[in-house]
Amino acid sequence: MNIGFVGLGIMGSAMAANLLKAGYQLTVWNRSPEKCEPLVASGAKAVTTPRQVAETSDIVCAMMATPQAVMAVRDGADGILAGMAPGKGYLDFSTIDLETSKETARLARERGALFLEAPVAGSRKPAEDATLTIMAAGDRALFDTALPVMEAMGKKILFLGEVGNAARMKLANNLIMGGMMASLAEGMALAARSGLDLSQLLEVLDSGAMSNPMFRLKGPAIAANAEFPPAFPLKHMQKDLRLALRLAEEVCQPLFVAATVNELYKGALASGLGDSDFAAVSRLVRG
Amino acid sequence: MNIGFVGLGIMGSAMAANLLKAGYQLTVWNRSPEKCEPLVASGAKAVTTPRQVAETSDIVCAMMATPQAVMAVRDGADGILAGMAPGKGYLDFSTIDLETSKETARLARERGALFLEAPVAGSRKPAEDATLTIMAAGDRALFDTALPVMEAMGKKILFLGEVGNAARMKLANNLIMGGMMASLAEGMALAARSGLDLSQLLEVLDSGAMSNPMFRLKGPAIAANAEFPPAFPLKHMQKDLRLALRLAEEVCQPLFVAATVNELYKGALASGLGDSDFAAVSRLVRG
Amino acid sequence: MNIGFVGLGIMGSAMAANLLKAGYQLTVWNRSPEKCEPLVASGAKAVTTPRQVAETSDIVCAMMATPQAVMAVRDGADGILAGMAPGKGYLDFSTIDLETSKETARLARERGALFLEAPVAGSRKPAEDATLTIMAAGDRALFDTALPVMEAMGKKILFLGEVGNAARMKLANNLIMGGMMASLAEGMALAARSGLDLSQLLEVLDSGAMSNPMFRLKGPAIAANAEFPPAFPLKHMQKDLRLALRLAEEVCQPLFVAATVNELYKGALASGLGDSDFAAVSRLVRG
Amino acid sequence: MNIGFVGLGIMGSAMAANLLKAGYQLTVWNRSPEKCEPLVASGAKAVTTPRQVAETSDIVCAMMATPQAVMAVRDGADGILAGMAPGKGYLDFSTIDLETSKETARLARERGALFLEAPVAGSRKPAEDATLTIMAAGDRALFDTALPVMEAMGKKILFLGEVGNAARMKLANNLIMGGMMASLAEGMALAARSGLDLSQLLEVLDSGAMSNPMFRLKGPAIAANAEFPPAFPLKHMQKDLRLALRLAEEVCQPLFVAATVNELYKGALASGLGDSDFAAVSRLVRG
Repeated sequence: MNIGFVGLGIMGSAMAANLLKAGYQLTVWNRSPEKCEPLVASGAKAVTTPRQVAETSDIVCAMMATPQAVMAVRDGADGILAGMAPGKGYLDFSTIDLETSKETARLARERGALFLEAPVAGSRKPAEDATLTIMAAGDRALFDTALPVMEAMGKKILFLGEVGNAARMKLANNLIMGGMMASLAEGMALAARSGLDLSQLLEVLDSGAMSNPMFRLKGPAIAANAEFPPAFPLKHMQKDLRLALRLAEEVCQPLFVAATVNELYKGALASGLGDSDFAAVSRLVRG
Repeated sequence: MNIGFVGLGIMGSAMAANLLKAGYQLTVWNRSPEKCEPLVASGAKAVTTPRQVAETSDIVCAMMATPQAVMAVRDGADGILAGMAPGKGYLDFSTIDLETSKETARLARERGALFLEAPVAGSRKPAEDATLTIMAAGDRALFDTALPVMEAMGKKILFLGEVGNAARMKLANNLIMGGMMASLAEGMALAARSGLDLSQLLEVLDSGAMSNPMFRLKGPAIAANAEFPPAFPLKHMQKDLRLALRLAEEVCQPLFVAATVNELYKGALASGLGDSDFAAVSRLVRG
Repeated sequence: MNIGFVGLGIMGSAMAANLLKAGYQLTVWNRSPEKCEPLVASGAKAVTTPRQVAETSDIVCAMMATPQAVMAVRDGADGILAGMAPGKGYLDFSTIDLETSKETARLARERGALFLEAPVAGSRKPAEDATLTIMAAGDRALFDTALPVMEAMGKKILFLGEVGNAARMKLANNLIMGGMMASLAEGMALAARSGLDLSQLLEVLDSGAMSNPMFRLKGPAIAANAEFPPAFPLKHMQKDLRLALRLAEEVCQPLFVAATVNELYKGALASGLGDSDFAAVSRLVRG
Repeated sequence: MNIGFVGLGIMGSAMAANLLKAGYQLTVWNRSPEKCEPLVASGAKAVTTPRQVAETSDIVCAMMATPQAVMAVRDGADGILAGMAPGKGYLDFSTIDLETSKETARLARERGALFLEAPVAGSRKPAEDATLTIMAAGDRALFDTALPVMEAMGKKILFLGEVGNAARMKLANNLIMGGMMASLAEGMALAARSGLDLSQLLEVLDSGAMSNPMFRLKGPAIAANAEFPPAFPLKHMQKDLRLALRLAEEVCQPLFVAATVNELYKGALASGLGDSDFAAVSRLVRG
């Protein structure tokens, strides 16, 4: 099976490298062509348009940062769609909105191709370690064919049904993440104002049923009330909460806690913390 | 060192058994004396009043369910205090309010004894496995002496400073726990109304940075919208949230999320879910 | 000055009648032509298309219930725009979204006409009594010309600047109204559960600084926990809160209370109260 | 009927003056005796202890600022109670906690006297104009006797049943007031960030169903984002919200909006606004 990969940012590069390690023939493209070099050195073939990637591959993977970037590599004479044909598969790992994803599905199917939206959970390290969680939704036949390909990049691969479900699943996931972080921030703030040792609170949390990697990773910076380098920018978390609340309005689900959590992130955004890590919400809570 | 143990419920029995395993001489008392039998069979000595436990021990441990029970074994002619003397130590593992704990400290010290409040995090299984987290606050000298004793029952032993800090730490811990559970409940409700598969949401959560034992333990019952046998009753969680919010008012710390979470548990209480597990808050959210 | 009126529902009929009383020459159109009859009996002229209204009038007023209805009378060969010409004015009293309003402004100006969006505050009674509040935004020259026309229908006429500001003002107004009602509902619920007499609470409220017509009008039905005939349907209030919160997100204004109020109305909606009056939010609060 | 008045602050002086105007024989006492002078000039008799007031009066009125002040004039050899006797009445207009009020009732009744707790709604101006709202609870017989006396000071006099109900009613009233103010503050903040004219928003509010004296009085200072001289200090509003939420917990009534409103006032308190008027919560919202 020939695989193509379009979009070689931090995530895409690591994922493509794992495809090479797994023995796949790989054709790659990136807007800045120098990002292709390490992969070419490991055996990949670089081409000059996304269309060429599609023409030479059975399955084309894309990993873009925004809906605009997804459309930029997808549409036009040099775009992925122009190279799609019956029997080929289009696998989009980008985390984007429902509408763009549905539009890609429609366009790919018009050309006889199959489509999966497949946003991932996990950042750089899991991408490098091939331990991502991949939430795939769309054409089941493509999921079955592409499963070994996805298994070369992730350790948990789920099929969620029709296109849109993966985007929805990611919103539910991030709603919980935003709430957990807000509760951690408030508990830490209460402990701080009560004169407790915040590193001890982190030890207590880590020794019991709530023990989780996120608290271990972000807790010390919250305890120090320090700067938060943006692993997952706060403005993106607030955007996901906003989208989750819109989904909740569509399905008529009251979410008192999430609505309050969203206002907290909005408050942090208004305080200029949008480009910090989402854990910086604790700076607003600490006051 | 002779150790005494008063209060042999589920937690106390398991903790006392671990003291025997560690080789300590153990004197025990329980209101229902038959609870002493398994321990006596393993080498403990049973006596007929809490006072006798104190008289024969260097360190007296107590593990009671309520402030009333703490006072019942502590006060009066047959109480622990009546058997305390200079040089002895009083170690109270009960999770109770600040005021009762401070009163015990005052009374123990009046008799020349040392005192630690030492609420634990963890339930039956960690008690049996000697993997409890013990939050100790009070007399540092007693902490140093009793450390090996506590290490026979827990894997994480913390000294938090003056009496009261352990109670405060437990409130901060439970505030975060209540918030995490509420966010899980809301995320699950959103997923359910959006037509997603809740067991897949649990898989996604468990495969990433939020992965934690509590979600693994409680998640399936929430997904099933089933009955929740009360491991930690909802009414106790609501009480802890109320106490945490009062502490927050004393130290002037706004807690928007926790205040909303508290109303959610109050709503669940008003719906008759007080005796269910605190995860039953999801039944209110699901509507 | 010849005036036209399109849309003779409860509000429009009353407003048009006041124009006749003020002595204006009036041309009217309504989808169901029988609504024109009372006005024709009082001296108005009925025509068969919105376009004819525009052709025979200096200023065309429209009062429609939804954006769809606005577009239906505005567009096409028989629409208002087809009859507009330089020097004429288009005055839209409908309460609709920002985008539709801006589009009407653009289209009217393309034909050389002037435009005002002019949503009103007040329902049937103030419409009949010519005591509406009219929030007008758009072309200042049309505002100055149309002021006597608007004064024939309302007692408070405000010019708010560019198109969009009237829609925004109405959202801010309704956000406050939704919050006042939610606070009334909660205060009444607290009083009820505390065994107080709710009619006495209403008396206290009405005797002091909070005294307002809305509490007087809606309070007794809340006290009785009775049915609420829909003067302003709850689903419309929830829609306005949603739009107000979206506006707040655009301008980065945290609104903790309004976000919580919105969830309360969403909860009422999920309980099947969408077609009741917005005061029915109290039924959800009462439990 | 001889009336006594103890506590001649801003409110008490104005209320006592209205009793003189109504033709009652009046005996007065105040901790700072110079406050008695204007009343003595108008015909009142000043004495040197609260006990003497009680001894010379059929009904003793008290208007104190805090529970401590209530107890200071009530207890001891020179206190009101020492001068009470069967047939006399004790009328306490102070706004205090439930427990102090119940204790006064118990002590007065022990001496054969009758008691009413009678907190008032309204501040200096209504006190001077005899237009206060008086919420009386306790002995019905005293209410009936004292009604003309109360009518000399207020325009709305309510009997609410047993002692405690007046305190509860005042909490429900202030919960609604705190929520109305918070919603006004949020609507004003949204309007400000959206570029609207805040004085126009106030005009719109005042022209419709929400029109109320509080918005008229406090609105302009909120619009100006100016200083707020403390008519009703923010810290007192937060205290009342806290007490209202505790009452809600006792009666198991969820109050999502009030809980969020309380956090907003707590945030304002943490920002140093406790001694400003409660309308200063808008400064926190404006950010």
